[in-house]
Amino acid sequence: MAETKSSAALSIRAVPGIPEVRAGDDLAGMIAGALDQAGMALTPGAVVVVAQKIVSKAEGRLVLLADVNPGQLALELAGQCGKDPRIVELVLRESSEVLRCAPGVLIARHRCGFVVANAGIDQSNLPDGDGCALLLPLDPDASARALCEALSEHAGGRVGVIVSDSFGRPWRVGTSAVAIGCAGLAPLHDQRGMADRHGRVMQVTQPAVADQLAGAAALVMGEGSEGLPVAVISGWPLGESGPAACLVRPAQQDLFR
Amino acid sequence: MAETKSSAALSIRAVPGIPEVRAGDDLAGMIAGALDQAGMALTPGAVVVVAQKIVSKAEGRLVLLADVNPGQLALELAGQCGKDPRIVELVLRESSEVLRCAPGVLIARHRCGFVVANAGIDQSNLPDGDGCALLLPLDPDASARALCEALSEHAGGRVGVIVSDSFGRPWRVGTSAVAIGCAGLAPLHDQRGMADRHGRVMQVTQPAVADQLAGAAALVMGEGSEGLPVAVISGWPLGESGPAACLVRPAQQDLFR
Repeated sequence: MAETKSSAALSIRAVPGIPEVRAGDDLAGMIAGALDQAGMALTPGAVVVVAQKIVSKAEGRLVLLADVNPGQLALELAGQCGKDPRIVELVLRESSEVLRCAPGVLIARHRCGFVVANAGIDQSNLPDGDGCALLLPLDPDASARALCEALSEHAGGRVGVIVSDSFGRPWRVGTSAVAIGCAGLAPLHDQRGMADRHGRVMQVTQPAVADQLAGAAALVMGEGSEGLPVAVISGWPLGESGPAACLVRPAQQDLFR
Repeated sequence: MAETKSSAALSIRAVPGIPEVRAGDDLAGMIAGALDQAGMALTPGAVVVVAQKIVSKAEGRLVLLADVNPGQLALELAGQCGKDPRIVELVLRESSEVLRCAPGVLIARHRCGFVVANAGIDQSNLPDGDGCALLLPLDPDASARALCEALSEHAGGRVGVIVSDSFGRPWRVGTSAVAIGCAGLAPLHDQRGMADRHGRVMQVTQPAVADQLAGAAALVMGEGSEGLPVAVISGWPLGESGPAACLVRPAQQDLFR
């Protein structure tokens, strides 16, 4: 009998009271403190979803645009997409490939494999947004592992951690949160080879549970002025720990190209 | 002040006891009955997520493959992708465009606009899977509206209804549930034009909340032998009713093409 990884009931709560995060801050400590303050005891088995933005801030990934000198390619692409050449330069540094450059649009493959607008570089909700930009964490799976270790210690047993970001999608309107970092839980529920209820072996059903957990958490985290950057999901069977890198499809396996 | 559509706490529960659904069944009545049986009183403001599969079954979208005569194009494409030519014929009938045909892969734009493998045609969890195929509902938004009307009456006030299906994604491994039908709630949370917490107007953040709700529900619904085809989400502010068709990006606006 394969381990079941579905769950009959989940609860998802945003964590209030996370202060503004700055480079070098002990993010796990701040999250644990906010949980305690809110009377939300973190228990083993919980999934803590943390917005990429505060992970990046804590890791000092804020870049002053005044310090960025755009190169020739950045200047050319900036002319095509109409974006700040310094942002385009950062996109180039952060990515392995530019997939699309058109007026208002710059889509790149981030060096971690994510295909995302502006290589995930963000200018919203920054203390000095026009003058700076926030890059994705250097290694979001490592960020998740560090948070997982510290928060599991706080909880007295293993918790799962997802570092989430909101990505646009081809063919569909609107953004959806995905897991860019994952530790302490299984990012994919592999049902390939399991029998369906009529005994046939299923071939392709492999839910991206870490992405769906990130999306569920995004519903309570909100964005913008009402944003709460951390949520806790209870009731989810963690499964075997794996990285969010599992969720990145190698370019050569992309069926939609 | 814009209406806030984020929520500080959500709960998501699968509904047990939905019987096998057959063509012509009163699906809303079966869902209401299962909710009552489980002691899960449906209250106004809840979101009911219903798997496409049982909607299609109730609407008689099961096709006997013995009744399908593949045409010339279906035979050609079947040769390229190695699929049953009768399935390929159904894909062609259900779609407006074939985007990709390769060994093991047939990706089409469904006539409702969804870009999905096999135009959403499914052979798992069918009573006679090898001999039949299940098509998507003719008009999933209309299906959602009918369920919304009946279930809102049952609840004594408006509930939201999402008809969900699991789609593969380009660039990412694994499937994620999306809303293919929606009624009684806002499919998109439009934050464009809202100020972020530092007063800057956000340009592109527009979470696809119906997709994220569908993904959250999929976590408790599971698939295969453990599948529960209905879930109820509590705590979500419904917002203004809109169709899932809003979530389909017109082909000419596709930034990733």
